[in-house]
Amino acid sequence: MRRIKWIRLLTVISTLLLAMSVSAQDKELTLQELIPGGKNYSRFVPKELKQLNWCGERYFYVKGDSVWGAKPERKEQVLFTREQLNQALTQAGLPTVGKLPTFKVPFAQDTHSTVLAFNSHAHQIHFDYQKQKVTADYALKSAWSNLDFCTANQYFAYTNGNNLFLLSPKGDTTIVTNEQEEGIVCGQAVHQREFGITKGTFWSPQGNALAFYRMDERMVTTYPLVNIDSRCATLVPHKYPMAGMKSHEVTVGIYQLATGKTIWLKTGLPKEKYLTNIAWSPDERSIYLIELNREQNEQHLVRYSAETGEREAVLITESDHRYVEPQHPILFLPNDPNKFIWQTEADGYNHLYLFDTDGNELRKLTGGEWVVTRVLGFSEAGDKLIIEGTAPHPVSPSMHSNGLSRYVWAVNLKEQEIMNCLSWKVGVHSWKLSPSGAYALDNVSSSTVPREIDLIQVKEAKVVRTLLTAPDPYKGYRMPKIQTGTLTAADGKTKLNYRLTLPPDLDPNKKYPTIVYVYGGPHAQLVTGDWMHGVRGWDIYMALRGYVLFSVDGRGSANRGHAFESVIHRNLGVNEMADQMQGVAFLKSLPYVDADRIGVHGWSYGGFMTTNLMLTYPDVFKVGVAGGPVIDWSNYEIMYGERYMDRPQDNPEGYKNANLKLKAGNLKGHLLMIHGDVDPVVVWQHSLGFLKACVDANTYPDYFVYPRHQHNVVGKDRPHLHEKITRYFDDYLK
Amino acid sequence: MRRIKWIRLLTVISTLLLAMSVSAQDKELTLQELIPGGKNYSRFVPKELKQLNWCGERYFYVKGDSVWGAKPERKEQVLFTREQLNQALTQAGLPTVGKLPTFKVPFAQDTHSTVLAFNSHAHQIHFDYQKQKVTADYALKSAWSNLDFCTANQYFAYTNGNNLFLLSPKGDTTIVTNEQEEGIVCGQAVHQREFGITKGTFWSPQGNALAFYRMDERMVTTYPLVNIDSRCATLVPHKYPMAGMKSHEVTVGIYQLATGKTIWLKTGLPKEKYLTNIAWSPDERSIYLIELNREQNEQHLVRYSAETGEREAVLITESDHRYVEPQHPILFLPNDPNKFIWQTEADGYNHLYLFDTDGNELRKLTGGEWVVTRVLGFSEAGDKLIIEGTAPHPVSPSMHSNGLSRYVWAVNLKEQEIMNCLSWKVGVHSWKLSPSGAYALDNVSSSTVPREIDLIQVKEAKVVRTLLTAPDPYKGYRMPKIQTGTLTAADGKTKLNYRLTLPPDLDPNKKYPTIVYVYGGPHAQLVTGDWMHGVRGWDIYMALRGYVLFSVDGRGSANRGHAFESVIHRNLGVNEMADQMQGVAFLKSLPYVDADRIGVHGWSYGGFMTTNLMLTYPDVFKVGVAGGPVIDWSNYEIMYGERYMDRPQDNPEGYKNANLKLKAGNLKGHLLMIHGDVDPVVVWQHSLGFLKACVDANTYPDYFVYPRHQHNVVGKDRPHLHEKITRYFDDYLK
Repeated sequence: MRRIKWIRLLTVISTLLLAMSVSAQDKELTLQELIPGGKNYSRFVPKELKQLNWCGERYFYVKGDSVWGAKPERKEQVLFTREQLNQALTQAGLPTVGKLPTFKVPFAQDTHSTVLAFNSHAHQIHFDYQKQKVTADYALKSAWSNLDFCTANQYFAYTNGNNLFLLSPKGDTTIVTNEQEEGIVCGQAVHQREFGITKGTFWSPQGNALAFYRMDERMVTTYPLVNIDSRCATLVPHKYPMAGMKSHEVTVGIYQLATGKTIWLKTGLPKEKYLTNIAWSPDERSIYLIELNREQNEQHLVRYSAETGEREAVLITESDHRYVEPQHPILFLPNDPNKFIWQTEADGYNHLYLFDTDGNELRKLTGGEWVVTRVLGFSEAGDKLIIEGTAPHPVSPSMHSNGLSRYVWAVNLKEQEIMNCLSWKVGVHSWKLSPSGAYALDNVSSSTVPREIDLIQVKEAKVVRTLLTAPDPYKGYRMPKIQTGTLTAADGKTKLNYRLTLPPDLDPNKKYPTIVYVYGGPHAQLVTGDWMHGVRGWDIYMALRGYVLFSVDGRGSANRGHAFESVIHRNLGVNEMADQMQGVAFLKSLPYVDADRIGVHGWSYGGFMTTNLMLTYPDVFKVGVAGGPVIDWSNYEIMYGERYMDRPQDNPEGYKNANLKLKAGNLKGHLLMIHGDVDPVVVWQHSLGFLKACVDANTYPDYFVYPRHQHNVVGKDRPHLHEKITRYFDDYLK
Repeated sequence: MRRIKWIRLLTVISTLLLAMSVSAQDKELTLQELIPGGKNYSRFVPKELKQLNWCGERYFYVKGDSVWGAKPERKEQVLFTREQLNQALTQAGLPTVGKLPTFKVPFAQDTHSTVLAFNSHAHQIHFDYQKQKVTADYALKSAWSNLDFCTANQYFAYTNGNNLFLLSPKGDTTIVTNEQEEGIVCGQAVHQREFGITKGTFWSPQGNALAFYRMDERMVTTYPLVNIDSRCATLVPHKYPMAGMKSHEVTVGIYQLATGKTIWLKTGLPKEKYLTNIAWSPDERSIYLIELNREQNEQHLVRYSAETGEREAVLITESDHRYVEPQHPILFLPNDPNKFIWQTEADGYNHLYLFDTDGNELRKLTGGEWVVTRVLGFSEAGDKLIIEGTAPHPVSPSMHSNGLSRYVWAVNLKEQEIMNCLSWKVGVHSWKLSPSGAYALDNVSSSTVPREIDLIQVKEAKVVRTLLTAPDPYKGYRMPKIQTGTLTAADGKTKLNYRLTLPPDLDPNKKYPTIVYVYGGPHAQLVTGDWMHGVRGWDIYMALRGYVLFSVDGRGSANRGHAFESVIHRNLGVNEMADQMQGVAFLKSLPYVDADRIGVHGWSYGGFMTTNLMLTYPDVFKVGVAGGPVIDWSNYEIMYGERYMDRPQDNPEGYKNANLKLKAGNLKGHLLMIHGDVDPVVVWQHSLGFLKACVDANTYPDYFVYPRHQHNVVGKDRPHLHEKITRYFDDYLK
C-alpha cells in the first residue's frame, strides 16, 4: 500500500513538473514583446554588446557604468568608468552625466586616437579616456541641425534654418551661406535622399574646404501637411516634387576656409539633373560627382576643379535601357591617389572596378552572379579591399544562395576578380573594420544563431576571440515553425526565396487561414539568411494565433542583380503581382492552407501591392490590410518614381495600369487601408484619393489613420497598429 | 370531376392573385429610394406643386412646360408657357431656355406685380408674363456672389472676392468697398452665420442706401483645409475663430447711393461683439441692430443714425444668466412707423411684444408655454400679425402638444395676448402669405397626411380651394410601424417626445437589435408632428432590416422654450445624455428590445453625443457610428461654442468634462467615426484628435473619411454613407 502511495505521489510530482515545464515552454508572446516599440520588445532582440565600436585600434563597448575594451592582442579591461568621466567633466566645469552617454568616435580614421565624443546638455564634449581629460567642448544651439564634424580641422559644419554655418574649435561661428528667400536650402541632403545621399556637407580630406549642396526648390509644388497637435491645426508646408512636374535645382558649392569664399561647380544645363555621390580627391583639388540625367538612364563620373569650379573631365559614362542608380561615391586607394574604386551594376550585378583618374579601367575586381553589398575598407597593407557580398559560401556554396547570405571577402587589388573569404561561419556577417584594417568586429547570425560577435584578425581571417554568443531570446516560449525554400517566378525560371511561418501545433489535416505579407518593391528583401530567416514579429504573433504566414521575394526585390530588380520598369505591379501569385499557387498546393481564406498585408510599396492584389484578384484575396500605400504613381515623388516609371507624360499606359483609383470598382473583399496623417513620403492624397474613388465606384473599403505619424507607424504606437491589423484579420479571415 | 378541376383552377388563380397582391404590398425600399441623393429618392418625397409661390396677388406653380396660376377668386389657368417665354427672350435678343427655369419674385411685396425673374446663361432676366415681355436683363459675372436685388431701385449689390459692388439697372458697376488686405471681408454674412444672420447686405426701404457688414478677420486663426482633388493637394485656408481665442471684428457701413459715400456705425469698443439682426427704419434715417456681448448674456436693441453713424439710443436691454440668442430683426408695423415687433425668449418662450421707437413696451402680444416659430406678415388691414407657432390646436389641444404641431394664428396688435387660429387641419402648417396679406398658401402635413396644399382666405380662415392632396408615396411598399409618445426626462418631470420605428412584422416574443438615433443639441427637433413623425429614411431602412429604431428629443433640443433648451449651458453632454438614458430605460422596458444589442448613431452634435454615450456607458451601447463629431469644444468656433460653453478659460471644468479625448480609454464596443475631409464646421482636428487619444489610450475605434465632403455627406454619396453605416451595424450588432 505504502509503496503504491509513493508511486502515486511520484506520479503526481512528475506530472506537476511536466506541467510546469510545459507551461514554461508554453509561455505566450504578445505584441508588446514582438513589435518594435512594444514595452518588452528590447528583451527579445538578440543580446548585443552596447555601443560596440573601434576607437583607434581598441574596440570598446558599454557595460553598466563602465566602458570596456582592449587592443585585440590584449586582455579586455575597463577603459573608464562613469565616475572617471564625471571627474573629468567636473574638472572642465561641465555638468556630470547620470548614465553613460552614447559615444561617437570623432577621429575614426586615427589608429592612435583615444578620444570619444558625446552630446550632453547641448554640448558636444570630447573625452580622452587615456588622459582622463575633456579635450574639447563645443556649445551647440538647439536650432542647429545637420552637424558634420571635421576630423582634420575640428570644425563643425551645421545648418540653421536653410543656411549653412561653421563652428570653429574656439567657438566662433562663420556664415557660409546667407540665402534669404524661402525655398532655397543649403547644407542639407538633396534629391529626396535617393542615390545614396544622406547628408549635405562634405569636408575635404585636410579640412581646408567644405563642399555642400544648395537646393533651389522655389519652383517645386508644396504639399500641405497639417499638424493637428497645435491649439488650432497648423499648416506644415512640405516641398514635394511629384512625378512629371517641375523638379528642384541643385548646385554644389565649395567653401574655402582660408579665403571665406565659395565657388560653385559649373554643373550647367539642364538644371534639372542629379548631382550625386560627392567625393574629394585626396589632394583636395578636385571634386568627383556622379551626374545623372532626370530620365535616370545615363550617368557620368565627372571631375570638377575645387578651386575654379570648372568641369574638367567626364571619366566614365554608363547608360541602361531601364535605369542606372548610382549609390556609392568613388573610393581612392590609400596608397595611390590616382586610382579609385568604381561600383556599378553595368554587368548586371553590383561589382567593383579599379580605375585611374584619367578614366581608364585598370581591371575588374569582382564578378559573378552575386552583388557587392558593402565596401568596408582596405587591408592594413592597402593591397586588398575588404567587402561584404552575397557570393556563396566558399565551403558549402549551396547554403544561403540567392542573396540570402553575406560573407566578407578580401579582394585583391592587383588582380582580376580574385578574392579570399574572410568569414567562415555560415550566415550573415556584418563587419566593423579597425582604423588600420588589421582587425574587425564580426557580427554574425543565421537562421539558428541569434548573434555571435567575433574579434577577427583580418590578414589570416582568424577569430582572435569570441566576444559574445547571444542566447535564443525566445527560449521557453511557444514558437511557430519557420520554413524557407525557393519557388519559380512567373518567368518560369528565376528562383525566388520564400518563408513560411506555421502555427506551432500545425495539423496538416486542418485548413488554416493564410496571410501573404508582401513588399514587392525594389531595395528590399524580406527573406534573409539572418536570425530566423528575418521573420517579422507580427508573423510570429499571427502564427501563434493559428494563421499561416507567407512571404516571397519576387522579382523587383533587392540583392539579386539589375535584371531581377529592374524587371518592374515602367509597369509597376505587373511582374511583382505575377510572382506573388506564384506564391499563392504554391500555398494552394499545401494541404493545410485554406484557399478560401487567403489574406494579404503590406506597407508602402507593400500597401500598393496589397491594394493591387485585392483589386486584381478579388476572388483570391478575401481580406487585405494596406498601409501607407502608393495608389497613383503620378502623386509620388520624382526621384524614386521616375526611376521606375519615367514621367507620366512619357508612360501614360504604365501609369494608368498602376493607378489603383481606376480599379476601385473591383473591390470585393475586406480591405483596411491605413495612413499616417503627416506622411511626407507617400502623401495622404494617395489613400484619401482611393477612398474617393471607392465612394464614386460604390465599393466599401475600411480605413484608419494614425495621427501625427509619418510614413511608418513607429515607436510606442506600433503595437497598437498591429493589434488593429490583427483584429481586422480576426474579424474577417479567421 | 370537371367541377373539382374548376375549383382547383379557381384556387390556383386566387392564390396567384393573392401572391401578386402580397408581392405588390411587399415591394422593398432601398437606400437609393430612402436617402436624399439616392437615384429614386425624389419619387418618395410627398408630391409638391413645383415652385408654388405668389407673384402679386396671383399664386403660380410650374407644371411641365407651363406656369399655372390664378388670383384666388378666379379659376386656375395657364399664365404662360415656355414657348411664350422663349418668344419674349428671342424678341429681347436673348437665348431661349430648354426647360422652365427656377423663378424668383423680384417685387415680392408688390400686390400688382406680374414680373418673374430667373437666371439663364449668367444673366438675370425679368419677365412680365402679363405683357409677355422681358422687362429687365442684368449681365452677371461668374465671379460675383451674394447678389442682393433691391426692389425699390432695381440695383444689385454683389461681392467680388472680398469687396462689395453695385450693378445699376443700366448695367453700370460701382465700387462700394476697396479693401486690399487679405482677411477683410465686405458684404458677406458674418459671425459664422449665427444669430439668424444669412447675408451681408441690407437695402434701405426706398433703395437710397445700402447697409453692409465689414468683417476684419486678419487676427483670426486659419484652419488649413486641404483639397486632394488637385494634381498635388492644395491648401484651402479657412478663417476659423476657435472658442477662447481671438475673434474677428465686425462693423457696419452705410453706403449712400446719392453721394457715393460710406459712413460707419459708431459701434465702438469692445470690437469683439456681435452686431446682429440689422433693420432699417421705414424712413431710412435709422438702423436698428441687436448688439450682443461676446459672453452672449446681454443684448441691446440699439438705434444708430444712418446719416451720421451716431449711436442714438439703446431701446431695449435684456440679459440672462445662461445666454440670450437674438435671431429676429425688429419688424415695423406697416401702418405705424413708430411701432415695431420685438421677439424675445425673456419670459422663457419665444414671444412677441409691441414696442414704440422710444423703447416703450406697449404690450405683450403672445404668451404661454409655447413658442412663436415664424412671423409670416400682417393681415390685409394691418391690424393683425400672422404667425406660426407651437401653441396647441384650439379644438383638440391634447393633439400634437410638446412642440410637435405648427398652427397659424392671427395676433391682435391692439390687445394683450389675443389670437385667433387660422389653420384647422391637424398637423404642421407652413404658410406663404400673399403680398397683401389677404390670402395664403397653406402646406399642411401630419403623421398620416403626406402633404395637402390649401389656398386660404386669411380674414375668415377659410379654405378657398385645395390645390393638392399628395398620395402616400410608400403605397405598395413594405413599411415599418411608427409609434410616438412621451417619456419623462431625467429631471423627473419634463415630458419628452420619442419616436419608435419598428420592423413591419415585429414579433413581441423576439428580441431585436435596437439603434438610438440621436442629435441632442440645440436648434433641432427629431420627433415632429409632420409626415410619419419626421422619420428618417435610414430609420425606415433599418426597421425593414429587422432593427428597432428610436429617437427622443431630450432637453437641449428646440421649440420647447428657453429653460428646456438652455439646461445644457456650460456642461454640454451631461443633461442630454441623462435624457437619452431615460430613453434607453424605456427601451429596456419593451419586451422586444434586446438590451444586449443596443447601438447609437448621430452626426455633428449627434456625433458628439454618440461618442460620449459610447464612452460614458460602454456596457450599454455595443456599437456606435459617430459622424462629424465635436470631440473637444475648445476646437469649435466661438459664436456657437461660447454661447453654450463660455470660453475655455472661464469654464475649464465644463470643457474638461465634455472633452471626449479624455474619455478615449473607456471605449469598449465598436465605434465607427466618420468625417468629411474638408469639414469647415466641425474641423477635421476633432476626429483625428480623438483617434490619437484612442491610440494613446490603447483603445480601438474604427474610422472612415468621405473625401471632398464638408460637414455633411450630401448628394450622390449619401446613400454610400448609409450603406457604410448599415454594414457596420450588420457586422457588429445584428
